[in-house]
Amino acid sequence: MSSSMQTLKVELGARSYPIHIGEGLLSRPDLVLAHVPAKQVMIVSNTTVAPLYLEQAKALFAGSGKTIATCILDDGEEYKHLVELNKIFTALLESRFDRKCMLVALGGGVIGDMVGFAAAIYQRGVDFIQIPTTLLSQVDSSVGGKTGVNHELGKNMIGAFHQPKLVLIDTLTLNTLPDRELSAGVAEIIKYGLLCDASLFGWLEANMEALLARDPAALAYAIARSCQDKADIVAADEKEADVRALLNLGHTFGHAIETGMGYGEWLHGEAVGAGMMMAGYMSKLIGNITDADLDRMADLISRAHLPLYPPPQIKPAQFLDMMSVDKKADAGHIRLVLLKTIGTAYLTGDYDASALDRTLAEWNAYAGEQE
Amino acid sequence: MSSSMQTLKVELGARSYPIHIGEGLLSRPDLVLAHVPAKQVMIVSNTTVAPLYLEQAKALFAGSGKTIATCILDDGEEYKHLVELNKIFTALLESRFDRKCMLVALGGGVIGDMVGFAAAIYQRGVDFIQIPTTLLSQVDSSVGGKTGVNHELGKNMIGAFHQPKLVLIDTLTLNTLPDRELSAGVAEIIKYGLLCDASLFGWLEANMEALLARDPAALAYAIARSCQDKADIVAADEKEADVRALLNLGHTFGHAIETGMGYGEWLHGEAVGAGMMMAGYMSKLIGNITDADLDRMADLISRAHLPLYPPPQIKPAQFLDMMSVDKKADAGHIRLVLLKTIGTAYLTGDYDASALDRTLAEWNAYAGEQE
Repeated sequence: MSSSMQTLKVELGARSYPIHIGEGLLSRPDLVLAHVPAKQVMIVSNTTVAPLYLEQAKALFAGSGKTIATCILDDGEEYKHLVELNKIFTALLESRFDRKCMLVALGGGVIGDMVGFAAAIYQRGVDFIQIPTTLLSQVDSSVGGKTGVNHELGKNMIGAFHQPKLVLIDTLTLNTLPDRELSAGVAEIIKYGLLCDASLFGWLEANMEALLARDPAALAYAIARSCQDKADIVAADEKEADVRALLNLGHTFGHAIETGMGYGEWLHGEAVGAGMMMAGYMSKLIGNITDADLDRMADLISRAHLPLYPPPQIKPAQFLDMMSVDKKADAGHIRLVLLKTIGTAYLTGDYDASALDRTLAEWNAYAGEQE
Repeated sequence: MSSSMQTLKVELGARSYPIHIGEGLLSRPDLVLAHVPAKQVMIVSNTTVAPLYLEQAKALFAGSGKTIATCILDDGEEYKHLVELNKIFTALLESRFDRKCMLVALGGGVIGDMVGFAAAIYQRGVDFIQIPTTLLSQVDSSVGGKTGVNHELGKNMIGAFHQPKLVLIDTLTLNTLPDRELSAGVAEIIKYGLLCDASLFGWLEANMEALLARDPAALAYAIARSCQDKADIVAADEKEADVRALLNLGHTFGHAIETGMGYGEWLHGEAVGAGMMMAGYMSKLIGNITDADLDRMADLISRAHLPLYPPPQIKPAQFLDMMSVDKKADAGHIRLVLLKTIGTAYLTGDYDASALDRTLAEWNAYAGEQE
């Protein structure tokens, strides 16, 4: 049982929903059943998470009289496509689930994105709840309503905006998360500190070791704070016209790293770690942040066991090329999220191109020196 | 050039859009370009319609400076699935189309449903316009925003609500439509008359031959009237809670015919023709409409060259079984749209079950006698 649950509400008018965060929440049916009017519930998970938490998730509905079915997908970003998605529809139709049914996403970001998207388009839209079991999905996909799958020619190119009815975050599920994935989740938390929350950044400087040791109170604080930061940004800009683009701090550089290395080689959070350093360095070159600020960033990112440098084999020209096809690019022109200070970011397409060139060249050189 | 264009506006707040109906509208770029701010336009059609109208559709954008690409799908309901849909995404990504691009659906109902759905989920939603080239799609999918694809276990089980920015109906495109498909489209027009528009029903009694002869003025009148009737119903109930279900007059019986015969054997409109007669007969048994009303229905439906009877090989028990798995069924209980009068329909699950049994038995017997 959780002694210290935190709850925050994502405010989206009629589509508002709560996020409950705490230790042991997977044993709290009362938190879940209040949001599940459906008589038919399909729990979707993957081959890694199901053996760990599926029975607990099913037990949330024990004695409720609801029909509970399950669908277990293959695990991994390489299965995040339409053909795998169709397995969810097959399971729903074989169980004769109607348009009043509800889906439950039990797993990390891939499961959350796929199940949310399946819910968005099954019989033109049914409800779903999220039980994210990785730190990255807890601080990232809990808020924002972005769902979808990849296409072989681009990540997340097929999808919908679809908000969950509830997000249930049990910090105990992080005890089974590999260290490398924990760090990758921390990268996104650092990102919130950098882009809009200097106080969170300071808290991370004081509490990084507690976080990596999976201290429940530290985890709950960092997760709640991150979700709140993201919720504030999304509330201001649900469909990503402008403000929401700030969430891509480190991501334009990071996506180039992921694409250049081939997906799966670097974890997303690892690429974001190096990407934030590159955005920070460029922000310094432009005269926004100080050397001391950049040192604070490097210190925190390396304490999180995240890489500071991109892989040296990706040369500046290749970086530029991949950055210009990023979804955030506007007709090939690279727009970047840069830092004004630690805690304040801005989106701009109007910058000194030589600062970008110098960043790419120097960080490629630094990266080479690390080898 | 059209001398007598009709325009109606589907009122859906910020998502309102116009439907232009007239002869030769495929030669009117002025009507189209006003609704296409996009610089990248993808025209999607099929192997039957593209040879007839693709060049004309492309010419709408001649000299506009826009990038025009095309994607030609296989023709037929059997290709209305996720794998075929993915061809549209591949074409869009190969052309590097971004989220400000626009899709154009050029074809019948299958193309309209698929392209609308592709637009709903490409990069989480882009705009589209419809150029329906069959009578059925002109009077049915022009209004309502329902998009989607089939699953092997059920029709239209995967989809989204997504409204077009414009519907352009050129009645000249009907000159290449096979007679049997023209009649199938007329079935839906008769349906609007029966369910909410006694005056349209009377007009059809006076003008059926002109309609089947593809008289441009008659076509334009019947299409505009049907779209307006559907728009009024959809405006009252966009997401199909209640009123919108009236549009399924004849469809619960009709879907059972389509499923029982195997899709493609009977055209949808043909199944709806027999289905309306069955709904009408049951409405008479219940004491709503008179023998004379039923005769008027039979007369009009047979003048449209549509079947009055279901195929005799589908026995009453099989009918009942298939009707109970229809999407409109509520936990297996069959809800039906019945007639109060010609021009007034209602949805009910509260009817004398013996009237349904008698309808199925007697129409199976009538059908047998026709052979």
